[in-house]
Amino acid sequence: MSASVDSPFGPGSVGLVTPQCFQYDAPFTLASGRQLPGFELVYETYGQLNADASNAVLICHALSGTHHAAGYHSADDRKPGWWDHYIGPGKPIDTNRFFVVALNNLGGCAGSTGPTSINPDTGKPWGPDFPMLRVRDWVNSQKLLATHLGIQVWAAVVGGSLGGMQAMRWALEYPDQVRHCVVIASAMKLTAQNIAFNETARHAITSDPEFHDGDYLAQQTSPKQGLATARMIGHITYLSGDGLGEKFGRELRSGSFARGQDSLVEFQVQSYLRYQGDVFSDKFDANTYLLMTRALDYFDLAREYGDDPVAAFKTAQARFLVVSFSTDWRFSPERSREIALALMNANRSVCYAEIESNFGHDAFLLPSERYETVFRNFMNTIVTEAQS
Amino acid sequence: MSASVDSPFGPGSVGLVTPQCFQYDAPFTLASGRQLPGFELVYETYGQLNADASNAVLICHALSGTHHAAGYHSADDRKPGWWDHYIGPGKPIDTNRFFVVALNNLGGCAGSTGPTSINPDTGKPWGPDFPMLRVRDWVNSQKLLATHLGIQVWAAVVGGSLGGMQAMRWALEYPDQVRHCVVIASAMKLTAQNIAFNETARHAITSDPEFHDGDYLAQQTSPKQGLATARMIGHITYLSGDGLGEKFGRELRSGSFARGQDSLVEFQVQSYLRYQGDVFSDKFDANTYLLMTRALDYFDLAREYGDDPVAAFKTAQARFLVVSFSTDWRFSPERSREIALALMNANRSVCYAEIESNFGHDAFLLPSERYETVFRNFMNTIVTEAQS
Repeated sequence: MSASVDSPFGPGSVGLVTPQCFQYDAPFTLASGRQLPGFELVYETYGQLNADASNAVLICHALSGTHHAAGYHSADDRKPGWWDHYIGPGKPIDTNRFFVVALNNLGGCAGSTGPTSINPDTGKPWGPDFPMLRVRDWVNSQKLLATHLGIQVWAAVVGGSLGGMQAMRWALEYPDQVRHCVVIASAMKLTAQNIAFNETARHAITSDPEFHDGDYLAQQTSPKQGLATARMIGHITYLSGDGLGEKFGRELRSGSFARGQDSLVEFQVQSYLRYQGDVFSDKFDANTYLLMTRALDYFDLAREYGDDPVAAFKTAQARFLVVSFSTDWRFSPERSREIALALMNANRSVCYAEIESNFGHDAFLLPSERYETVFRNFMNTIVTEAQS
Repeated sequence: MSASVDSPFGPGSVGLVTPQCFQYDAPFTLASGRQLPGFELVYETYGQLNADASNAVLICHALSGTHHAAGYHSADDRKPGWWDHYIGPGKPIDTNRFFVVALNNLGGCAGSTGPTSINPDTGKPWGPDFPMLRVRDWVNSQKLLATHLGIQVWAAVVGGSLGGMQAMRWALEYPDQVRHCVVIASAMKLTAQNIAFNETARHAITSDPEFHDGDYLAQQTSPKQGLATARMIGHITYLSGDGLGEKFGRELRSGSFARGQDSLVEFQVQSYLRYQGDVFSDKFDANTYLLMTRALDYFDLAREYGDDPVAAFKTAQARFLVVSFSTDWRFSPERSREIALALMNANRSVCYAEIESNFGHDAFLLPSERYETVFRNFMNTIVTEAQS
């Protein structure tokens, strides 16, 4: 287990953390019917599990997230984990009270078994042969991790975006093992527009000649340009139009519009996007990107419940918090209201909050006073056995 | 001049049309300061120019438009010109009253001088050496075409999107030569989000290895995959989210979500987008796409007027019609209201209509009763000398 230590990172930080690895050595059957011979999940924990293991909170990550949700990996780390604003001592997910588990999902590229891992049958990286995954596969593999950690019941399962889909699926698949479910900036299924953006991103990747039908690792290359284009599409659509405007306006990076000049005038937003695309394509695996976006596209909460979300949620026992952000147009408040309405009609306990924000879908990752308050208040209602 | 003939295409059609070519043989200085040694513009006309040449209407096209705005090129043509809904006998731009001129803009790839044309200095295609263009270059070249056709004053200059930018620029550059100005689904300048989408599309094109720094024609190839990705981005963003949802929902093209299946499940919207991307990349020139999107990005109506749109529009003498569409999020109604407000504050005559539509930016091309009525009513107010 990784230790939270007092650290020079300040009182709200979980401090230095060390990733751990959970190895599952038995065959694992996927929703597709295919089997993995076993798998590894890399994860981090923050806080202490209490005596009756009733204070455990699972963090489910989104498209490009990892197990590194909070704290720092070394003393000279410049950036903390991706959700450090909301996880730590005194933060909404208060590590003084909760034992927090964050993992890199199966199929990921941050250490867990995925397309870049060695396929034991061939001795080579899985690459494009890695099985397609569904959200329920993540839930089932997270369940095995929970058992490994001695957690029978989660005090809460929490996630934003694709992570919210995992949280909801948890509440339906293991209803007596999820006491609270926090679903942020998510949806019961993607819209056609959302699928279309994902498809365009995938087209950019798979049409890059360096993709080699997914076998780029064997060719010692990577479809970096395609991945960069995919990330650029993501970046624009995860921000709001107004947010981009406030951040960049039409400011020029260089050049001018003066008559007589024929150089390529560049706006700040252009070089920012190109930079973001390049950084991402250096560190992320293209097959993982394809796999994650496909799981997003295919997720449909109520498919196995006669397409009736109310029937689906009647299965759940958890108390729900559903949060959306006003300018999020890829997972719009309308999608979250659909979740909240279905929960109410299923007679479940649900709090719904729509947060004013100028940051689009990315708002779920960013500091915001009202969001923090809503989140904290809900988490504060969670009674852990050791306290009661 | 092309003739409108009675035809089997029905009473509302201009019938068969034949493109013409205007050749300008003198040096033409661009906004950048560079010179073209001359140029050709391919154009079509519909209706008859009246005796005092007071009934001429100029159609300015958008990003991927052409001179073929109405009618048919042959008896077995299946699709009419791109704005056939609005140009023809009895239509809003009524060819019984107006002499309509539609051209392919300089830098285009439908017959006018552009990157695919031969550079007389080298004997090879211009390719990436074709000069950068500004909207005012189109206006100035259109002015030369007008002179060639014996038109001193346009009864109206009309355009949607990038075409609306040309119409506005006409009204500022040649105020006594534009009596009416119709600006549809346009903006005084692009937002950062809009620039960001264009930049992502350009990245997809220029990072395609077949782009060869723009010299793909010399290599007898073309960056088709990049161009297809660019078009896919365009397609999604020119439609509204609801429009895409209504058209495709989450319908499957093949496959199913049944357990046990690991094939690539495909949504209808995916294959539609891929098809659209492929069709476009077969016929459109990548350098033209770059050039057109850069002109879009750089357009800023009031830049030379101290960034004051009111000061800019005080230059204009035309009567304006400004139209926007409720679900257009790339050229949102807000942008059109800014135009209308600046015109009012400049004491100009302006009608503004916001049309309810589910078709996003594409609505300006599509049939809509209210849009048609507004458009027709405005055009009907135009008095041509021959009538008065």
